[in-house]
Amino acid sequence: MGINKTVSVLGLGRMGSALASALVDAGYDVTVWNRSDKPAPPNTKRAATPEEAFKSDVVVTCLSTYDVQEPLLTNEIKTLVNLTSGTPEEARATAEWAKANGVEYVDGVIMAVPQQIGTKQARILYSGQQEHHVLQAFGEPVHVGDDPGMAALYDLALLGIMWSAFGGYLQAVALLGTAGVTPQQFTPAAVDFLNEMGTLLPEMGEETQHKNYETDVSALDINVAGLRMLAEASRQQGIDTTVPQALHDLFQRAQANGHGAHSIASVIEVIR
Amino acid sequence: MGINKTVSVLGLGRMGSALASALVDAGYDVTVWNRSDKPAPPNTKRAATPEEAFKSDVVVTCLSTYDVQEPLLTNEIKTLVNLTSGTPEEARATAEWAKANGVEYVDGVIMAVPQQIGTKQARILYSGQQEHHVLQAFGEPVHVGDDPGMAALYDLALLGIMWSAFGGYLQAVALLGTAGVTPQQFTPAAVDFLNEMGTLLPEMGEETQHKNYETDVSALDINVAGLRMLAEASRQQGIDTTVPQALHDLFQRAQANGHGAHSIASVIEVIR
Repeated sequence: MGINKTVSVLGLGRMGSALASALVDAGYDVTVWNRSDKPAPPNTKRAATPEEAFKSDVVVTCLSTYDVQEPLLTNEIKTLVNLTSGTPEEARATAEWAKANGVEYVDGVIMAVPQQIGTKQARILYSGQQEHHVLQAFGEPVHVGDDPGMAALYDLALLGIMWSAFGGYLQAVALLGTAGVTPQQFTPAAVDFLNEMGTLLPEMGEETQHKNYETDVSALDINVAGLRMLAEASRQQGIDTTVPQALHDLFQRAQANGHGAHSIASVIEVIR
Repeated sequence: MGINKTVSVLGLGRMGSALASALVDAGYDVTVWNRSDKPAPPNTKRAATPEEAFKSDVVVTCLSTYDVQEPLLTNEIKTLVNLTSGTPEEARATAEWAKANGVEYVDGVIMAVPQQIGTKQARILYSGQQEHHVLQAFGEPVHVGDDPGMAALYDLALLGIMWSAFGGYLQAVALLGTAGVTPQQFTPAAVDFLNEMGTLLPEMGEETQHKNYETDVSALDINVAGLRMLAEASRQQGIDTTVPQALHDLFQRAQANGHGAHSIASVIEVIR
């Protein structure tokens, strides 16, 4: 697979370097380029200019932002596999540009850490009209839609769950820390609890879809009161309240809109 | 176990009713009381007044708030098992009151939904100097410290992780919903991803404890940029931005404090 095919990777951050190495392992002839002087991964060829890198059959970009990427793109590129992180709008605009310039285009996002690249643990979500074989060198490609912005949308939505969970965990570390509880003491319970909460998501999703918020488990009223106590306890213990306060305000808005006796899923009504 | 012992339950919400039924199942002689007229669970005796309920050997409270609970408490109570949700300060104040009034006191919180009460799935965190056997009728008691406020602190900290994760999930539902993706289509990936993120918490906890934020996985800079994109994409798609914006602001504050090249765990430095 892939022997005699040439691929260039633009961007030698942790992720770009891992992608280049995975391509080498998969048998591709790999050229790399980076704005600043960074070490080229073993068995790759460093291009002096982006133009030199564009001679490859496929160009993979993994740059820090679209602002860095945009000025580099030219119609000399044959096939662009865009793995630079951005918004759905940025991905769609790049797809438009590619279409107008006769460049084959695949938009993807990497749901993995650099250490997982090249293994089946690395899920590569991609969108647009076509697949590209190079994605298989990186991990497990999953097509999420023909709209080229879809992969970026999935990326942000899933990372949003991660950022939220991490924010909640760090608040817990800080809050319990005020009473001398170490992360080691409560993290096992936190992980168990988080996994248990994960099992509730499919039902929560169904509720949002059918707008059926009847509950015999836990009404929004109780959760708004709980969030008020969390913010209050955080304040009393002298720690930051940004995230609990924001969640409280959001949940309270749903309560004010008549969802007090409904399930937590009803909060969707003030988000969407 | 518990035969011939009398227990009263104050509060007949979903949880209080489940507690009363579990006590009946465990062989206790159970009296119940509620402010308003609510059906008494099978095989329990309804008290006309709180004073009548206080004649039992043990009084379990599961009321909506401490504001409701406080005016009810008198030194006629022999042993108080306080399961009303509140802040650590409220729990500590009630422990002080109990001590001053010669009332035996146990403070507990229920990490379970009413349907789990009476099974080993229901974890009952309790704190203070003593255990009480009635807790075993409700589920699996876990002692979390001698400070009577500790159970409430654990409760809020763990629920905070839940509220954060649910907030992140509902944001994802709304965001993907703008592109016609149903919860069914992406929730399995979200659950997998959340579980995977859970496996990272022990290391994150260690990092906060040793203030060692070196990373070769994902620097805060990239995550702040991602949160900005999530807030921007939410705005562009016309959905609420409260939670992503709050997380962005919190993470950005850590970045501004010199943690840009550090791991996400460094955000703790602007919370605690």
